[in-house]
Amino acid sequence: MRRKAVILLSGGIDSSTTLFIARDLGFELYALTIQYGQRHLLELESATKVAKQAGVAEHKTIEVDLRSFGGSALTGEVDVPKKSGTLRTEGDIPVTYVPARNTVFLSLALSWAEALQARHIFIGANVIDYSGYPDCRPEFIKSFEKLANVATKAGVEGYRFSIQAPLIEKSKSEIIKLGKALGLDFSLTHSCYDPEKDGKACGICASCLIRLKGFEEAGFVDPISYMESKEGF
Amino acid sequence: MRRKAVILLSGGIDSSTTLFIARDLGFELYALTIQYGQRHLLELESATKVAKQAGVAEHKTIEVDLRSFGGSALTGEVDVPKKSGTLRTEGDIPVTYVPARNTVFLSLALSWAEALQARHIFIGANVIDYSGYPDCRPEFIKSFEKLANVATKAGVEGYRFSIQAPLIEKSKSEIIKLGKALGLDFSLTHSCYDPEKDGKACGICASCLIRLKGFEEAGFVDPISYMESKEGF
Repeated sequence: MRRKAVILLSGGIDSSTTLFIARDLGFELYALTIQYGQRHLLELESATKVAKQAGVAEHKTIEVDLRSFGGSALTGEVDVPKKSGTLRTEGDIPVTYVPARNTVFLSLALSWAEALQARHIFIGANVIDYSGYPDCRPEFIKSFEKLANVATKAGVEGYRFSIQAPLIEKSKSEIIKLGKALGLDFSLTHSCYDPEKDGKACGICASCLIRLKGFEEAGFVDPISYMESKEGF
Repeated sequence: MRRKAVILLSGGIDSSTTLFIARDLGFELYALTIQYGQRHLLELESATKVAKQAGVAEHKTIEVDLRSFGGSALTGEVDVPKKSGTLRTEGDIPVTYVPARNTVFLSLALSWAEALQARHIFIGANVIDYSGYPDCRPEFIKSFEKLANVATKAGVEGYRFSIQAPLIEKSKSEIIKLGKALGLDFSLTHSCYDPEKDGKACGICASCLIRLKGFEEAGFVDPISYMESKEGF
């Protein structure tokens, strides 16, 4: 029997590449998309397409309305910064930070993993481009892994959960090269924080800027459509 | 300004007493009820009534469908055991265990706490009556507290979250005596895993049996209505 893995999948570059890494490692893939009150549903469509391309055993979407807790540009209470060229606010934490988001995400992945008897959980967390997010740091991943082995039957029944964040110290261009090498079709992925109604990426939000810079550095053309010209970048 | 606390509130005896403990400690109360695909909504009504009695600053309900992950009697995939007098299955983990439930619950409480700038989170976890639940043990609470301080702005901005489980080593009768002393109206609380349509408790599920035994040992009459006579108990 193949080993099972639960992979958190948003449909963005990092989580999609992570899914393809787990696939390359030979896991039976269980992709989990968490709908947490985003402004748009385009990234859920991307997740569905990427999951299909990867040939997952199951793709589950679960809703949890983190928006109701408030406090983040990504959940609708603060404007997404444009043309800032950075994700930072005046302090060290980006306004796009969603409080405890990855803790909630990994908890849900853990719940499914325990029900599935999967021992491996993959998350596309990355410290380089998102170093202001406390829950994208290696020490967070290690701390969650410790918790997972106390919080579940693992501690009682004598197995262990492994939380894997294979991209955590990679640059965006390294991630894009890796995804390419593993066969990921990046035209299916989605990054924009604030896309146009026709689905085109804005090209000027922090997430688009990071994506475009990553493709440029990797030496590839980004296959998705952008609304604005890249002149501002 | 009063210190804020987020309290996980199901409307059962343990979480309701925990809310009254936080109230007694002088916190401004933010009660969080998580609707996770229970069979019935009666406990949500109880939570609303208890929150009102406690005079909370805010009571928020958030939905997350843990039922879709499968694997527990409480989320509808396995029958609730009747007249067993125990929560145990043949192994050590009760069938009513919901995988990683308290990890998901504390993660959501942490998200709200961070948004509110509350530093204290209360949970009614209890190891005595639920010793088969891995996520009701003191080491789980400690491990989550460590995680909370790595997962959030706490680590970056130099404050700390405190996760408090004041009932963790108390017996049900001790909890009932404590709730009584703090003024909790137990007629508002709810425990039954499988209530009748008119809202009466079944009196024979494991949760009812634990509740009835607790009241008996505490020397109080349980003020809620039961469908069946207590002769079976």
